[in-house]
Amino acid sequence: MQNTKEAEKARTVKVGLIGLGTVGGGTLQLLAQNGRLIADRGFALHVKRVCNLDVPYTEAKIAELGLTDTTATSDFHDLVDDPEIEVIIELIGGIHPALEMVQAALRAGKSVVTANKDLVASHGAELFKLAEEQQADFLFEASVAGGIPILKALKDSLAANNIVEIMGVVNGTTNYILSQMSSTGADFQPCLQRAQELGYAEANPTNDIEGFDAARKMAILASIAYNTNITEDMVYVEGITKISKFDIDYAAQLGYVIKLVGLARPQGDEAAEVCVYPLMIPASHPLAAVNDVFNAVFVEGDALGQSMFYGRGAGSLPTASAVVGDVIAAARHVVNGTRGSYGLRQFASRRVLPIGDCFNKFYIRLMVQDKPKVLAQIAEAFADSEISLDSVIQKRVMDSGLAEIVLITHQVREANLQEAMGRLHRLACVDCVASMIRVKGE
Amino acid sequence: MQNTKEAEKARTVKVGLIGLGTVGGGTLQLLAQNGRLIADRGFALHVKRVCNLDVPYTEAKIAELGLTDTTATSDFHDLVDDPEIEVIIELIGGIHPALEMVQAALRAGKSVVTANKDLVASHGAELFKLAEEQQADFLFEASVAGGIPILKALKDSLAANNIVEIMGVVNGTTNYILSQMSSTGADFQPCLQRAQELGYAEANPTNDIEGFDAARKMAILASIAYNTNITEDMVYVEGITKISKFDIDYAAQLGYVIKLVGLARPQGDEAAEVCVYPLMIPASHPLAAVNDVFNAVFVEGDALGQSMFYGRGAGSLPTASAVVGDVIAAARHVVNGTRGSYGLRQFASRRVLPIGDCFNKFYIRLMVQDKPKVLAQIAEAFADSEISLDSVIQKRVMDSGLAEIVLITHQVREANLQEAMGRLHRLACVDCVASMIRVKGE
Repeated sequence: MQNTKEAEKARTVKVGLIGLGTVGGGTLQLLAQNGRLIADRGFALHVKRVCNLDVPYTEAKIAELGLTDTTATSDFHDLVDDPEIEVIIELIGGIHPALEMVQAALRAGKSVVTANKDLVASHGAELFKLAEEQQADFLFEASVAGGIPILKALKDSLAANNIVEIMGVVNGTTNYILSQMSSTGADFQPCLQRAQELGYAEANPTNDIEGFDAARKMAILASIAYNTNITEDMVYVEGITKISKFDIDYAAQLGYVIKLVGLARPQGDEAAEVCVYPLMIPASHPLAAVNDVFNAVFVEGDALGQSMFYGRGAGSLPTASAVVGDVIAAARHVVNGTRGSYGLRQFASRRVLPIGDCFNKFYIRLMVQDKPKVLAQIAEAFADSEISLDSVIQKRVMDSGLAEIVLITHQVREANLQEAMGRLHRLACVDCVASMIRVKGE
Repeated sequence: MQNTKEAEKARTVKVGLIGLGTVGGGTLQLLAQNGRLIADRGFALHVKRVCNLDVPYTEAKIAELGLTDTTATSDFHDLVDDPEIEVIIELIGGIHPALEMVQAALRAGKSVVTANKDLVASHGAELFKLAEEQQADFLFEASVAGGIPILKALKDSLAANNIVEIMGVVNGTTNYILSQMSSTGADFQPCLQRAQELGYAEANPTNDIEGFDAARKMAILASIAYNTNITEDMVYVEGITKISKFDIDYAAQLGYVIKLVGLARPQGDEAAEVCVYPLMIPASHPLAAVNDVFNAVFVEGDALGQSMFYGRGAGSLPTASAVVGDVIAAARHVVNGTRGSYGLRQFASRRVLPIGDCFNKFYIRLMVQDKPKVLAQIAEAFADSEISLDSVIQKRVMDSGLAEIVLITHQVREANLQEAMGRLHRLACVDCVASMIRVKGE
């Protein structure tokens, strides 16, 4: 057996970095700041080249961090073509040209580390395959829940478990907005605005508030947990724009907290449920206490039982923590000659269950005419779709003369619920279905 | 480069198991139950021999689990001397003869996986050294917080971080008792009894309730986080036997929850604080919501920021989840020819700070004579030890004619606090110091 310890000590692994935005800047800073500690824990990492369009800015940053043996370039070929560079970090985000860069790096025989969830959630399978052909590593811990080491936990530490359920609060922006709505009693819009002022939400917040960002992360999580290939377009998504302060308030009265949750569950050996939607979670559930911009992934394994991984899902240094953790792993594999042995291998083929075939409890808030027999008509509409009600919670008459009814159903097939909604809409006594939110069962 | 994937596929790694108690039984069950899934995720594990004193029981268990190619023995040499067995799992617990068995296994060139916290917390350093000499793995994820993959996270995923603080709720028994006291208002003794009835506490509960079990886990956590050698005898320990329902109640009124917490913090480059004691934690802190027998380890890294790892800290299958996770890692290293490259290498030498040199806020509950000027005398005793008070919370007169005073200090050096306690004891107006509990600062 090779004396790997001696080999590691003798080696410095040379790294190339593409992108010097928030996460790229944090990664370069972390490698500079904790370089000595990282070397003490294994072997030295040396960032040989940083590729970024703005070369003078890059050079200034390199100087500011006191890196004396790092050069700047605006051409990524300078990294890909450099035979000394063995690991390339891609942190420019988005699909193009990141995809082409990652492909070029892998084809050149480099291992690649990325934080790019868009890329992994859409082109993961082909990149895993390419990495495997090249016997290179393709690592992307930072693409899901920032600094939280959930992918490595699923791949390694929990490898003896059948994963029964994953529930993730994996988008900090929406979690901040919902936490604010909950703590201040304000409605969605002012809380979104506050998130934008604080830099937690972008000027165009669609990706976050409509759940698309969370859907990408759930596609990646489900692919890893179930050894299958799930892309973002397969994930059913509902965002949080329709959640009103009234719903937050009713939820609290009922002992629930509303979170934007990503859910992944296997259904038999050949299917899986993978969705993102607002969910009422019992206040005693560990995820209910995950507030503000924090993320958490709740995992239930058949052996492990319930577990949760909590931390910062975004930000420069928290994300850099995951990126550099992957770089250390990739570098160790380079030195040990074991690259490409930690990736996804045998893909199980799983179809994603249509949302209509999923089962949930539902909270439904209706505005109805304040007349006799209205409740009986509504109950009948549900009964006709074979839905039984757990409780009818409240009824208050509004200034408009309409009454508000809040119901919680028992576990129902979503298709049946949609049918019942159709029936309700056709009832003259029903003004509108104001809200419909899934409820986490026991 | 070797084609590791092909090598793994072609290989079945043969494993020996010592011990068939709660965790040993769970481990054998998990390997049988999820063997196919584990093979799909990498390569097959085959338990060739199980060593346990009661051979007929072992044979019955093997048959019950449908294992056809596993034999029983009562002599561990049958495992150590078998050249086909490459990984040995030690699950008998305690120091002797586990130490001798682990040493023999490592000397025979086997990798060893254990859940034995007593062994690692007392003889870790010599076993790491022996494993390193033998280029073998010595893995012990299950020794801390059961199924929660905290050691691997610290070693791998968080390897780019300086760990600023670790706070662990790492003993399920005491967490159950304190949770019960908090939710029912009962005192310590009845809650301990309830824990014993449920099998959460042993007939002799000393190890748990006096904090010794938690101290072992913190010695291991601190050793890994700070790359140093900290043994259980270096850890300052206070248990929970003196916590009364009055303290739980005052804590709640003040917005705190009392938990038995293990704490590890580096102090400069050469020292560390490693202790176990009851701590008042703000109710909004993620650890405050960790209830019943659940464990959690809260980790703050300089890059990652705050994170938390939550799950079951004990039990047959949750602990087996960590054991088998380690066996998979050890087997992968066997197949890849990279054994011994994941252990602790460069030990930094750190002394553990004496408790007198640590700083904390304190909650102090005093029983005093209900006379004029008593508060002035008490305040003076604190001032004489250079301790300033954050707040004087309450004063109620008891049936005995004594008054109760609850104070919270500002951050103080513990030696100064001890001095002030001496002064208080000498005051005629002070009947007793009923409680003294550290308070987590902001």
